Amino acid sequence: MNTTRLEAFSDGVLAIIITIMVLELRAPHETSIMALRPLLPVLLSYLLSFVYIGIYWNNHHHMLHAAQRVNGGIMWANLHLLFWLSLVPFATGWMGENHFAAVPTALYGTILFMAAVAYWILQRAIMTEHGNDLLTKAVGIDLKGKLSPVLYALAILAAFFYSWISQVIYVAVALIWLLPDRRIELVMQDEDGSRQM
Amino acid sequence: MNTTRLEAFSDGVLAIIITIMVLELRAPHETSIMALRPLLPVLLSYLLSFVYIGIYWNNHHHMLHAAQRVNGGIMWANLHLLFWLSLVPFATGWMGENHFAAVPTALYGTILFMAAVAYWILQRAIMTEHGNDLLTKAVGIDLKGKLSPVLYALAILAAFFYSWISQVIYVAVALIWLLPDRRIELVMQDEDGSRQM
Amino acid sequence: MNTTRLEAFSDGVLAIIITIMVLELRAPHETSIMALRPLLPVLLSYLLSFVYIGIYWNNHHHMLHAAQRVNGGIMWANLHLLFWLSLVPFATGWMGENHFAAVPTALYGTILFMAAVAYWILQRAIMTEHGNDLLTKAVGIDLKGKLSPVLYALAILAAFFYSWISQVIYVAVALIWLLPDRRIELVMQDEDGSRQM
Amino acid sequence: MNTTRLEAFSDGVLAIIITIMVLELRAPHETSIMALRPLLPVLLSYLLSFVYIGIYWNNHHHMLHAAQRVNGGIMWANLHLLFWLSLVPFATGWMGENHFAAVPTALYGTILFMAAVAYWILQRAIMTEHGNDLLTKAVGIDLKGKLSPVLYALAILAAFFYSWISQVIYVAVALIWLLPDRRIELVMQDEDGSRQM
Repeated sequence: MNTTRLEAFSDGVLAIIITIMVLELRAPHETSIMALRPLLPVLLSYLLSFVYIGIYWNNHHHMLHAAQRVNGGIMWANLHLLFWLSLVPFATGWMGENHFAAVPTALYGTILFMAAVAYWILQRAIMTEHGNDLLTKAVGIDLKGKLSPVLYALAILAAFFYSWISQVIYVAVALIWLLPDRRIELVMQDEDGSRQM
Repeated sequence: MNTTRLEAFSDGVLAIIITIMVLELRAPHETSIMALRPLLPVLLSYLLSFVYIGIYWNNHHHMLHAAQRVNGGIMWANLHLLFWLSLVPFATGWMGENHFAAVPTALYGTILFMAAVAYWILQRAIMTEHGNDLLTKAVGIDLKGKLSPVLYALAILAAFFYSWISQVIYVAVALIWLLPDRRIELVMQDEDGSRQM
Repeated sequence: MNTTRLEAFSDGVLAIIITIMVLELRAPHETSIMALRPLLPVLLSYLLSFVYIGIYWNNHHHMLHAAQRVNGGIMWANLHLLFWLSLVPFATGWMGENHFAAVPTALYGTILFMAAVAYWILQRAIMTEHGNDLLTKAVGIDLKGKLSPVLYALAILAAFFYSWISQVIYVAVALIWLLPDRRIELVMQDEDGSRQM
Repeated sequence: MNTTRLEAFSDGVLAIIITIMVLELRAPHETSIMALRPLLPVLLSYLLSFVYIGIYWNNHHHMLHAAQRVNGGIMWANLHLLFWLSLVPFATGWMGENHFAAVPTALYGTILFMAAVAYWILQRAIMTEHGNDLLTKAVGIDLKGKLSPVLYALAILAAFFYSWISQVIYVAVALIWLLPDRRIELVMQDEDGSRQM
C-alpha cells in the first residue's frame, strides 16, 4: 500500500480544519470600525492556528515524502494526529473569544502538546516500518521535535499565572519551526529534511 | 472507468464528515475548567464517531484497492454508503449533547447498522463486477462484517433498557475492527486484505 | 491544459455541497422519537438533494472523461454550474424546514432549472473545444437533458397550486436519471456515455 | 519537491472557501417571495466573491503550471495567499448582511488588496526559484496584476464617500480579469499565460 491516498485524505482534513476556523470569525451586526475591535483577539488566535496547521501540513508533507509504504499502524497513528489537530479550531475559538483567558490558553497548549506527541508517534511508526534508516537520518537528533513539547508544557503552566507568557511561547515555537529552517534549507539543502519548512 | 475519481470523491466526503463533527463541540462562554465538563460526553461521542469514520475510510480504501473497474451500480452503492455515513455527525451531536440518552443512542446504532448494510451492498456490487474471485478470496467468510450488524441490532434494543450497554457494544465493535486486524496484518500479511486496519 | 485539476476542484466543491447540507439537520433538544418527526421533511429534502448532487457528480464525471482539453470558456462554464449547485443546500434547507411550502418548492425547482441550463452550456463549451465529434456522438439526441428543464419548469408552476405535484416531478426526474441508464449501461455499454449513471 | 501536493491542498482550501460562503445565505423563516428580498444583497456579494475565488483558482492553476519545483518560501507564500482568501467569506457576509455599508465595503477591498499583494509575493517567490525566465516571460509586464491593487485602494477610499462606487470598482476589476483574457486566449493562445482565465 502506498502513501498517495493517506496524503490525499490528510490534506483534505487539514484543508478543512484550516478553513472552518474562520467560521469563528462571525460578522458583527454593526458596521463601524469599532465593531471589528472585539474580533481582533479572535483574528489573532486564528492567525496563530493557521500558521500551526500550516507547519503541520508542511512537516507532514516532508515526512510522508520519505515514506514509501503505509501499514495499519501508520494509518492509525496518522488518524490520531488528525484527531488532535481537529480540536485546534475549538480551542482557537474558545481562546480568541475569551481574550486569551487562563484556562482556554492552557487548553490550547494541551492540544498542541498532544498533537506534538501524536506527530512523534507517527514518526516512530514510519521509522519502524522503514527500518530506521532513511527517515532516521533525515530527522537527526530532531532538536525542535523534542524542544516543542517542553515549551508547550511550560506554556500550559504559565497560563495560570500570566497567560501572555503562554502566548509568547506559542508564537516563539511557531517561529522556531518557521524561520531557521528556511535559512537552513538554503544553506544545507536536505539536512533535517523531514521537518523543514 | 477506473476507481481514482470514486476514491477521491469518497475521501473528500469522509474528510468533511470527520471534520465537521467537531463543529458540535461549541466553545463555552465561561472560561473555567468546569465549563468544559458538559462538553465531555460531546467529546467522547465525537471520538467514537471519529474512530468509526476512520475504520470506514480504512476498509473502503482496502476494498477499492482490490477493485479495478467501477460501474453505475458500484457508484450508487458507494453514494448510498456515504449517505448513511453523512448522518453520523447528526446522530453524534444528538447523542453527545443529551448524555447518551436512550433514543439518540438507538438512532446512533441504527445509522451504524444501515452503514454496515450499505457497506455490504457495495462489497457485493464490486464482487459481481469482478467475477467474485479477487475480493471474494480477500473478504473470506467476513466474520466481522456479519457480526457487526447483529451487535448494532443488540445495541439498538439495549438502548431502551440500559443505554450504557449500547455504548459498550459500540466501543467493542470499534475495537473488533481496530485491534485484531493489526495483529493479523503483522502475522499473515494479506489474508483478509479487504478489511484490515 | 488537461482536465485533472478541474475534476479535482469540482469533486472538492461537490463533496462539500453534498456534506454541508446535513448541517441543516439540527439535533433537537428533546430526546424522544417524537422529537425526530419535524425533522422528517428536512431529511427527505436532504435525501432528494443528495441524489441530485450524486447524479450531477456522476454525469460530470462522464462528460469530463470524454474531454481531453480545458480552455477558459470550459473553466468558467464549470464554475457557473458549481455556482448554481452551491445554492442547492440553501433551497433544500428552506424547503425542508417549511414542509415543502409553495415558494421554497418553486425556488428549489428554479435552482435545478438553472443548474440544468448551466450543465447544457458546459456541454456545449466542451463540444465546441473538441470539434463536436466525440461528445456529440456520446450525448446523442440527449432526450433526458432536454426533458429535464421542461419538467422543472412545470414543477415551478405547479408549486403555486399543489406543491406535492412539484415534489413528484422532482423525484420523477431524479428517477429518470437514475434508473434507466443503469439498464442501458448493461445492455449497450457506452451508448449515451456522457450522461449515464 | 514537486507542485502536486501544493496544488491539491490549495484546491481543497479554495473549494472549501468558495462553498462555505453559501452558509451565510440563511434560510428565512417565512415562505413568501418577499422573505427572499433581504437576501438579495447577501446573494450578490456571494456571487461577487464566488467569481473572485474562481479567478484566483484559475490564475493560481496557471501560475503553478509554470512552476516545476516548490521550496519553503513558495509554500509559505502560498499559505499567506490562502490566509487572506480565507477571510473573504467573513468580509462577504458582513458586507452582504449590511447592504454594502461603508466600513464592510472598505474591509472587503482591504482583503482583496492584501490577497493581490500575497499573489504578487507568491509570483516573485516562484520566479526567484525558477531563475526568472519561464514565468517572467509568461507574466510579461503584468498590467492587470499592477492595476488591480491600485483600483482596490481607490475602492477602499471611495467606500467612505459613496460605497456604490467601490462596488462598481470591484465588479470592474473582476471583469478585467474575466473578459479580455478569454478574448486574448483565443487570439494569441499562450501570451500572458500565467494569469489568463
